[in-house]
Amino acid sequence: MSTAALPLTRLSVNQQTVKQLSLPELADGCAKEGITAVGLWRAPVQEYGVERTARLMRDAGLTVTSLCRGGFLTDPDRAARARALDDNRAAIDEAAALGTDTLVLVSGGLPPGSRDLAGARERVAEALAVLGPHAEERGVRLAVEPLHPMFAADRCVVSTLGQALDLAERFPAHQVGVVVDTYHVWWDDQAPAQIARAGRGGRLHAFQLADWITPLPAGVLLGRGQLGDGSVDFRAFRTCVEDAGYDGPVEVEIFNEALWARDGGEVLRETAERFTAYA
Amino acid sequence: MSTAALPLTRLSVNQQTVKQLSLPELADGCAKEGITAVGLWRAPVQEYGVERTARLMRDAGLTVTSLCRGGFLTDPDRAARARALDDNRAAIDEAAALGTDTLVLVSGGLPPGSRDLAGARERVAEALAVLGPHAEERGVRLAVEPLHPMFAADRCVVSTLGQALDLAERFPAHQVGVVVDTYHVWWDDQAPAQIARAGRGGRLHAFQLADWITPLPAGVLLGRGQLGDGSVDFRAFRTCVEDAGYDGPVEVEIFNEALWARDGGEVLRETAERFTAYA
Repeated sequence: MSTAALPLTRLSVNQQTVKQLSLPELADGCAKEGITAVGLWRAPVQEYGVERTARLMRDAGLTVTSLCRGGFLTDPDRAARARALDDNRAAIDEAAALGTDTLVLVSGGLPPGSRDLAGARERVAEALAVLGPHAEERGVRLAVEPLHPMFAADRCVVSTLGQALDLAERFPAHQVGVVVDTYHVWWDDQAPAQIARAGRGGRLHAFQLADWITPLPAGVLLGRGQLGDGSVDFRAFRTCVEDAGYDGPVEVEIFNEALWARDGGEVLRETAERFTAYA
Repeated sequence: MSTAALPLTRLSVNQQTVKQLSLPELADGCAKEGITAVGLWRAPVQEYGVERTARLMRDAGLTVTSLCRGGFLTDPDRAARARALDDNRAAIDEAAALGTDTLVLVSGGLPPGSRDLAGARERVAEALAVLGPHAEERGVRLAVEPLHPMFAADRCVVSTLGQALDLAERFPAHQVGVVVDTYHVWWDDQAPAQIARAGRGGRLHAFQLADWITPLPAGVLLGRGQLGDGSVDFRAFRTCVEDAGYDGPVEVEIFNEALWARDGGEVLRETAERFTAYA
């Protein structure tokens, strides 16, 4: 297993980790800490302006490693489905404008009243067939993110890397791949084999880190932990993705109200330190 | 898929579903609703007395379908480990005294400070090697229950039926099998194949039902839902276990504070109705 610390140049800080910072504050903070890359979210980018954000990032010398997120493609209603596809096309265009080649997709949960997980996953596949060519035209790869099984009903019917790859492999690898997020897959003894499968197929499009801490908060969405605070063996996962040929950005993405309540610059510094110690 | 309702004689109500009821109240309530079987928990049984509980159940004509629960076998500390094994031997003896052949095992979480899921799972296997022969002597089968992956850190390092069977298959089937609990495995597209594998090996030792409802409460333990209130397709799971040769009790086990706040007899009636409608 590789034990040397990763250089800070491999770190990308996902904007949600320090969502208390405005985009200019994020750019300044990263410069101060020697952080060279960020993952962005659509809502704050739209609010600041897509082109304006792209310029801000370029001027600050920051690489945008991913845009979060498209997806929510499981609703069988025709009108809702058309709106979702339009919204995802817009997300692809925004990713291209920001200069990132990776749009993260969260599939969506079960439609209201439905108990048909397999059917919902099939609708995701149908949407990928429509969106893949549009993404290819824009030079963007769709990265299907399996979310932890505790989100299967209300957020993401794709729960494992195996399921995500079953979906992705129906399409060309330069159109559709997967995200490996330690928070979502750390418990899965099949994850190492699935990471190897993703690597062989050229579908390992993003690698994200967060730690698993307990007890989980109500609603469980904001339970992600700072690196080192929980149960995830990050070095083991890093070895897996490296063995699978991955040498791209390593993005830290934490949703945690305690981190959001602190000074954003201090959280950036801590994140860089934890990255060096644990990733 | 089988669509006929199951007869009420297949229903077993797990004591935790109506934990507001004392054991005599549970026996009375079941008689009133035509419920013929129950799953019991060690703490209330010990409090009432093991032999006394066995007599109460016999006199009421109630079958005890399982005892919950042994397990918590992941601590590497020698003294803690010896205590855990002793406690599990006592649980096996209690199961035998209650006349049930099934002791449910919850493996235990990661030891404090550990990030070694594979090591923790290996310690569960070592404990099964010790406990299996003792269980066999008493005519009790150890039923390893995979818990939902959201419990992997703090409660159960065995998260899928596949993992549970990997453990169980190291031992004779009459010593070690698995529990299929819909709440824990409903999200898993591998569950049908693993249920078939359990059936082929004679290791499908218990079948439990609870629904998946959101949002999850803080700590997530008490988030289990009444049948029909959530996302689980019970008929699909019932078809799976029937196709795997299972014709044993179908146990409803719900931990839910809203159910506990209601009249226990009313919850028993509702549970029987929901069982007929959904199971």
